[in-house]
Amino acid sequence: MQVHDIQAALQQRIDDKLTQFISQQCLIAEELSAAMQYSLFAGGKRMRPLLLTLVGDMLGAQKDDLDVASMAIECVHAYSLIHDDLPAMDDDALRRGKPTNHIKFGEATAILAGDALQTLAFEIVLNHPLSEKAENKRLEVSRILAHASGLNGMCAGQSIDLMATGNTISLDALTELHRLKTGALLEACVSIGAALAPDVDVQHISTLQSYARTIGLAFQVQDDILDVVSDSETLGKPQGSDSELDKNTFVSHLGLEGSQSFLQKLHHEALQALHSLPYDTENLVAFTDYLVTRNN
Amino acid sequence: MQVHDIQAALQQRIDDKLTQFISQQCLIAEELSAAMQYSLFAGGKRMRPLLLTLVGDMLGAQKDDLDVASMAIECVHAYSLIHDDLPAMDDDALRRGKPTNHIKFGEATAILAGDALQTLAFEIVLNHPLSEKAENKRLEVSRILAHASGLNGMCAGQSIDLMATGNTISLDALTELHRLKTGALLEACVSIGAALAPDVDVQHISTLQSYARTIGLAFQVQDDILDVVSDSETLGKPQGSDSELDKNTFVSHLGLEGSQSFLQKLHHEALQALHSLPYDTENLVAFTDYLVTRNN
Repeated sequence: MQVHDIQAALQQRIDDKLTQFISQQCLIAEELSAAMQYSLFAGGKRMRPLLLTLVGDMLGAQKDDLDVASMAIECVHAYSLIHDDLPAMDDDALRRGKPTNHIKFGEATAILAGDALQTLAFEIVLNHPLSEKAENKRLEVSRILAHASGLNGMCAGQSIDLMATGNTISLDALTELHRLKTGALLEACVSIGAALAPDVDVQHISTLQSYARTIGLAFQVQDDILDVVSDSETLGKPQGSDSELDKNTFVSHLGLEGSQSFLQKLHHEALQALHSLPYDTENLVAFTDYLVTRNN
Repeated sequence: MQVHDIQAALQQRIDDKLTQFISQQCLIAEELSAAMQYSLFAGGKRMRPLLLTLVGDMLGAQKDDLDVASMAIECVHAYSLIHDDLPAMDDDALRRGKPTNHIKFGEATAILAGDALQTLAFEIVLNHPLSEKAENKRLEVSRILAHASGLNGMCAGQSIDLMATGNTISLDALTELHRLKTGALLEACVSIGAALAPDVDVQHISTLQSYARTIGLAFQVQDDILDVVSDSETLGKPQGSDSELDKNTFVSHLGLEGSQSFLQKLHHEALQALHSLPYDTENLVAFTDYLVTRNN
């Protein structure tokens, strides 16, 4: 099976499982539930679940356990996008070609929907049934998720991004910013995939984490390149929005060609990390190639 | 020791432990950390930790374990206040006599500080050392916290509150709203206090949860009364802000005298619940009396 077939199948499965899970919840506040579901099912490609699943699969974890963690990761991801799009943050009106959450539901409900999606992520990893073998990994998985999301992870990255907007920061600072803002959650996907598998060598986990950081950075470099070379229809959001917001980007630091070479270097590094592992990394290689050649 | 001595000692202890805990964190994003600490140490009376501690103490839980849960509860409470005060929500400029978080740090950082405080709450209950006996309660405590905070608890209450603002809702709906918005976290305090104690009878836990719901409601009725009869200096926020926002309140439904009788009824019910328990409830009785007679 090709990686995009795996992705399509996974996207459907995660959507189905999230739909089923949410239908079992007692949805007291209708508007809040609608806003949460709007962003959770906005057609996201489920790239984080794909990474988590490819790593977990490769290491021998059970699919159903990986799906539980994937559902939680998508809740965190959806919450972060809703809050990032708010007028006080990036003030984006479009996401994946659709009105952003606050445009559709108003700012107050969007803030709350993000809040409740974060909580839902923890409800899922803390409560959702796991296989017998994975049950004793539940705390570890929850801890990885919390660490990656908070003041030492994603939130820190977003805060540094805010502070940097309108100011010029160094390339190192830009790299650190994206290591936190995007990389922390990708690294968590790899760590959780490994945590749910039996007895993985710590050295191999460390290599996979380093791989995740590299592709996280590559993902962002490609994002910055696309913001310059693509068009709004393909992107599903306004092209050129980074420079309009006076954001520091890899293109503003390295130029377009410099960013493309940097992307190639990261691509090569990521493949080298995979190559050093004693596992069948074919799908992860395909995933890596896909990430750096994507056009939206 | 009187309940207000217990409260003062607890307030100091929780402040110290939170300070110590945060000083051990790797604070990557300075502005974010400053905003989180600003609200976490804004002079809150730590009423939720007090309830949790009084219940846990009464049932034989260890103080250090109760403190861990109290720290987490305060992070959730602080996050909810920061987000509630935002311009898109209640648009409050003052809280406990000080500028609200978004006035001090800007809206974007305030949103992020709330987000990261929610995550921090889970990091605390998932990671902070507990006594050997409490270690196997860690998952249960985390689950109670998640359930109380999310789309079936506090966030639902806040969403219903938003939808109701400017519209007239029934007294039942107003009661349900506050059961979620304020009551869910108070009920979680009681449930966590019991979870950390050895072998509590489920019937007694249920009575305590019902007690928590009652005082949660009493707390809100008293809040609505104070918004009418108190002054801005005593309240630490503008008096009369509820009616200015066209909020449904118990006073708008029952009038001032009607609300005062309702408060007395709830006070009586709460004391009856405590009276039915085979424990030394002296401190909880004093706590209850304090809650309904407070003037800010």
